[in-house]
This record gives sequence, C-alpha cells and structure tokens, in this order.
Amino acid sequence: MKKKRIQEKRAKKIGLVKERKTKVLTSLSGLGQQLYDQMSKRQFPWVQMPNRSTRNIRYDQKLRQYILGEKTVKRSSRNIKHIRPLTQLVWTASFVDELREQDRTSTLRDVFYSAQAYEMSFTDQTESDNIITDLETVIGYSREDFNVFPEERSSIFGNLVVEYTVPGYEGKRLNLASHPDGMMIGPALTNAEFAECKADKVIVIEKGGLFTRFVEEKVHDKHKAILVHTAGQAPRATRSLIRRLNQELDLPVYIFCDADPWGMHIAMVIISGSANAAHLRDLNTPDAKWAGVWASDIVEYDLPSDKLTDLDIKRLYEFGKDPRYEGKLWKREIETFLKIKKKAEQEAFSRYGLAYIVDEYLPAKLEEMNKY
Amino acid sequence: MKKKRIQEKRAKKIGLVKERKTKVLTSLSGLGQQLYDQMSKRQFPWVQMPNRSTRNIRYDQKLRQYILGEKTVKRSSRNIKHIRPLTQLVWTASFVDELREQDRTSTLRDVFYSAQAYEMSFTDQTESDNIITDLETVIGYSREDFNVFPEERSSIFGNLVVEYTVPGYEGKRLNLASHPDGMMIGPALTNAEFAECKADKVIVIEKGGLFTRFVEEKVHDKHKAILVHTAGQAPRATRSLIRRLNQELDLPVYIFCDADPWGMHIAMVIISGSANAAHLRDLNTPDAKWAGVWASDIVEYDLPSDKLTDLDIKRLYEFGKDPRYEGKLWKREIETFLKIKKKAEQEAFSRYGLAYIVDEYLPAKLEEMNKY
Repeated sequence: MKKKRIQEKRAKKIGLVKERKTKVLTSLSGLGQQLYDQMSKRQFPWVQMPNRSTRNIRYDQKLRQYILGEKTVKRSSRNIKHIRPLTQLVWTASFVDELREQDRTSTLRDVFYSAQAYEMSFTDQTESDNIITDLETVIGYSREDFNVFPEERSSIFGNLVVEYTVPGYEGKRLNLASHPDGMMIGPALTNAEFAECKADKVIVIEKGGLFTRFVEEKVHDKHKAILVHTAGQAPRATRSLIRRLNQELDLPVYIFCDADPWGMHIAMVIISGSANAAHLRDLNTPDAKWAGVWASDIVEYDLPSDKLTDLDIKRLYEFGKDPRYEGKLWKREIETFLKIKKKAEQEAFSRYGLAYIVDEYLPAKLEEMNKY
Repeated sequence: MKKKRIQEKRAKKIGLVKERKTKVLTSLSGLGQQLYDQMSKRQFPWVQMPNRSTRNIRYDQKLRQYILGEKTVKRSSRNIKHIRPLTQLVWTASFVDELREQDRTSTLRDVFYSAQAYEMSFTDQTESDNIITDLETVIGYSREDFNVFPEERSSIFGNLVVEYTVPGYEGKRLNLASHPDGMMIGPALTNAEFAECKADKVIVIEKGGLFTRFVEEKVHDKHKAILVHTAGQAPRATRSLIRRLNQELDLPVYIFCDADPWGMHIAMVIISGSANAAHLRDLNTPDAKWAGVWASDIVEYDLPSDKLTDLDIKRLYEFGKDPRYEGKLWKREIETFLKIKKKAEQEAFSRYGLAYIVDEYLPAKLEEMNKY
C-alpha cells in the first residue's frame, strides 16, 4: 500500500529536476527582458530586490524558516554609484545563464576568475560572492540552481535509484547502494531524478566514521534507510537533497549529530535553514527530526564526555533566544546541556562496543522519535 | 598490445588485496606468538621496534622515500615505566586483529573510545594515536591495513572496474565512471581489487571544482584518464590507491595542484611520502609526476596571481634543504617562485574561459611531461 503510494508519487514527480531547470532559465531571461523593456522605454535600467540586512530578516512560523521582510533595495544605472554593482550583476546573470544552458558547473572561486575573461572586474572574491547572493535574491533561486557549487561535498548511500540528467549521462540510472563508501553529492546527483526507492526513511549522520559504521552494520537494510553523511555542517546541495527525499518521496528524516551545540546546530540548519539563506526557499526540511545525540543521552547512556567550553555555553544561551529553538525538545536539551555542562561525540557509544550504536541506540531512538 | 599486457597483469594481480589482508593478519598473530613464546620461556614479554625520532629518519635515494635508520627502542614489561604503553600496544593489536578479521573498520577517535569497553585506559586521543603509530612500526603495515581509517575522504572517477571484497559486496563489480560526481575513497574501495581498466593514465587533482570540470569536459574519455581528487593533502588511503594504480596497472600518474608551496608539497607527498610515514612502505608513488601548476606556468600563461606570503617564502627555503626536492624541475620551480614572488590557483585558468584548462593547458602539459 505504502509502496504503491510511493510508486505513484514517483511517476507523478519524475521530471521535477528538468522543470526546475526551466524555471531557473525563465527567471534569468525574465531579468534580461526586464532590463531590455526598461531601456526600450528609455529608462535607465534598474533592478529591485528584497533587502538582506539583519533588520529585514524575520522568522516565519508557517514556513518554519527565516524570510526577508518588506524592505527592498533598488539598483539603478541612473545612480553613478550603482553602475558598477548593477553591471556586475547583469554579467553574472548572463554568465550563469550560459552555465545552466550548457549544463556546465562552476564554483564561487571560478566565477571570480571567469569574470576576467570578460574584462569584468571584481576587486576580490568577496565582491563576486556578494553579487552572486544578490543574483539569488533577484531571481529567487540558489546558486546551486544556476550551477555554481561550493568545494565541499558530502555523500549518500542507500537503496535509491537515481536517473541522471547531466550531459553524457542522460537517462542512465544508478542505485546509490552500489558503492559502500558512499557517492559524492555534487552537481550530477543534485540534478538527478529519483527513479525508484526501496527505503522508507532517511538517516542523516554528521561524522564520516559513523556513516561507514552504519553501512558496515547494514543500517540501510535493517532499517530500510538512505544514509546521508553531512561531514560537519551540511552543504546547501545536501540540504536541498534531504528536502527532496522528504518531500518528493515522503520519507521521514532523522538527524544524528554530536551531542554539543555545534551538532545541534547542524541539525537545526537542515530543519529550519539559516538566516543567511533567508532570501531562498527549498533548502530546509521542516519535518526532519533531530534524533540525537541529545544531552539527555549523555546522562542516560553514561557516555564518555568532555566539559562544555565557555564558547559552547555562550552558543547555548544564544540558542535560547533563537526562534528556531522554540520547540519543547530543544528547550529541554538546551537546559540539560547547561545543567550537566558536558558534551559527547557520536563515537562515544563505542565504549559499549562498535555495534552498540546500531544494535541498541538506533532502534531505541527510532522508536522514541514516534513521540516527537 | 598494451591492452593485452594490462589484461595479463590484471589476471596475475587480482587477489593482491586478499593476499595483503592475510599478510597483515599473519603479522599481527606473529606479534602475539612472539609474546607467548617469551612468556613460555619465562621472560618478561617485550617488543622491539625501529626508533622514530627525527635523528633516526633518513632519505633513501633508492626507495625515494624517508626510512628509519638502525636505532631501535625496546619496550619490556620488566621495566615498570613500559608496562602501560606495552599493554596498550598489545590491546590495540588484539583490537585491530578483531577488526580486520571481521572486516569492520574504525577511526582513530573510535579506537580511543573503544578502549573503554575493555577498561583499557588512554589519557587522551593523542596517547591512543601514538600507540597506533607504534603498532604500525612494529608490524610494518599502516593503520589503514588494519582497518583504522581517518575521517577525511577524497574521491575517484574513471573507467576502472573494481571488484569489492568487503562483506555483503564480495565479488560485486562497479565501474568507477558510474557516478559523475565521483566515488568516495573509503575502506571498501581501498580493499577492492582492480578487475578491468580502460584508462591509460591517472590524473590527480587538488581542487574539487576542477575535478568536476574535468569530468564535465570528459577528460576521462578524451585522455583515457582515471581522475583522483585529493581535496587538499591526499589522505593515506588515497596515496596508497594512487600507488596501486601506478604499480598494479602500470599507469603513469600526473599531479595537478595549485601553483604555491602547499600545492607543490601535496604533489611531493604523493611522490615521495612524508617523514611521518618513514616507518611505512607502499604509500608513495616515486614515478608519479608533478605536472603543474608550476611557477613558470604563472609567467607563461600570464595567470591571475597573488603575492607569496612570508610563510610561503619560508616554506620554499625549507624545500631547498629537503632531499625530496633535489630534482632539476623542483629546483627550477622553487627558484622561479622566489623570483616572481607570486602564486596562482588552478582555477586561475578560467580567465581564458572554463574549458581552456582542459582544451589547451592539459594537452600541452601531458605532451611536455614526456620530457621529464
């Protein structure tokens, strides 16, 4: 029954990647059209976009992420100070339009150097990075949507067959359980359709060693799980892939990180996004669950632990004022951290043997998570 | 003809991974046997191993790597100060023997925590890491050989079919060109046999963005190359994989890094290893070539560059005294760096368009490398 539902979902949803590509290209050419129209009306060309300053960022309870408010900024070529950033923005739009059109990818660093091929000058990479964020804000898609990827990669493993859309691989399929060390999440996977899925949940893991342990102990089989390794803070392409697994395939998502404020925040950014990305949608997974390792697990499982540092404690107090951390579970765990003043790593479970985390902790946690 | 030779080589060489596993296990049980023998002769058990202090490290021109000299250290349970590290060493040997026997893997961090399951105490991870290096020295195999892997992973892509040996995947084959974002180099790939190879060279690349560019521009097809992404300094598993590609499949190896002392050194460690690994063999690839980006390329290609920092310059002077940097090419490039006082990144070629590095620079370089 469940399976049939997923099959239907798939059938309905394949083609989503192509659809999105078309939308991005349409949005980019819309920007160009707008500038042409302005000029043909004998206006100085201009663009308007939401203001990204901190004062214009607010948390949206319904979307469960940060969004930008009503304030906007306008860049007009009538203003001599705006000519430079406006020109840079238009060049960047045309550059990424070419990238996306040709299915080539690039990095932030590469965009900075590529500008020189067009005699477009950026003082440094900070300037070009900012312009790329401006472009995201103007067209409403993230840079990965227009094929600008970061250097960082994380990886994935599990019973999910993807269908590639990148040149040379169009229509080719691969089961993501084919390589037990994991597959890199790069441009090809980001642009792949989900063709077949035999998993019924997603387990996200912070540490590489534990990801390997989960594969070796066959968590993907025993728990029908797709495993995602974030390698620290999850890159945006990974966050968007997790969202797609949740929304397109209806899979619940459980996140396991170190029991410290940094681990908590890795989970939080997957769930509720970051203030930096308030101008973007589709990067967070509001229904994903932070499943551990909790401060209360340190107590309950008597885990080897370290003292919280002053910085850790400062971080926890900041969380207390952060609208994303308003849920009961978060509040309780922040309090527990502050009470016990300890933190622990995921690997700490190895004190009970290597398989303990998989054989004992994981099943108990998945069971418990039904309550949250 | 060439192909036939490779086929024969393969036929002869498949089974090397299993063979190595057997050797590692034999070496570990040899250590145990030695201790038993000592005790049955009513001796206090002891182990002897090469001394790893800097004064006992020298560069071997024939092996083209650092090795340890004649000095040894002895740890004997007769000496009360030795009892603790000797016990830790023996426990570690028995722990990794179990790991290797069961084909489970672990990390350095995990070994530290696992010790607690056996009431074996390490003050901190530095202590357990040191004991693991001791064990490497005693048995002559690296920790990856006994299934202790680091967190860092790099990746690989190309027309090479591997045959897995890890549990659940025994005998399964995969073409490493199946996933265009690259396959992680973890325990499974490290322990895979090379089954079929259609490539005739290996290209090693420092930066992830460039690795993706090379895949997109089909360097693997156009140049019949296996592409390896080091992601900065290559992890040891990656260095040992590069060596196997070179020695088992007879493939020449070309290394491309940033044009700066750090990039040079990434290439050097792949070629001649590090002083830290003087107690180990089979990690370096003496015949691999540093193909770029050279200091002289900055001049020749008029690349966008940054000034060398004081630290960069200090590094270059250190290289001048390092026996690994004695070749003509290295000397020339160190001099050029010091003369032009500039460095450049691999991405700098994008100033001539995204495909330039693949269409122009790479073929010119591969041609030129025949001279070196």
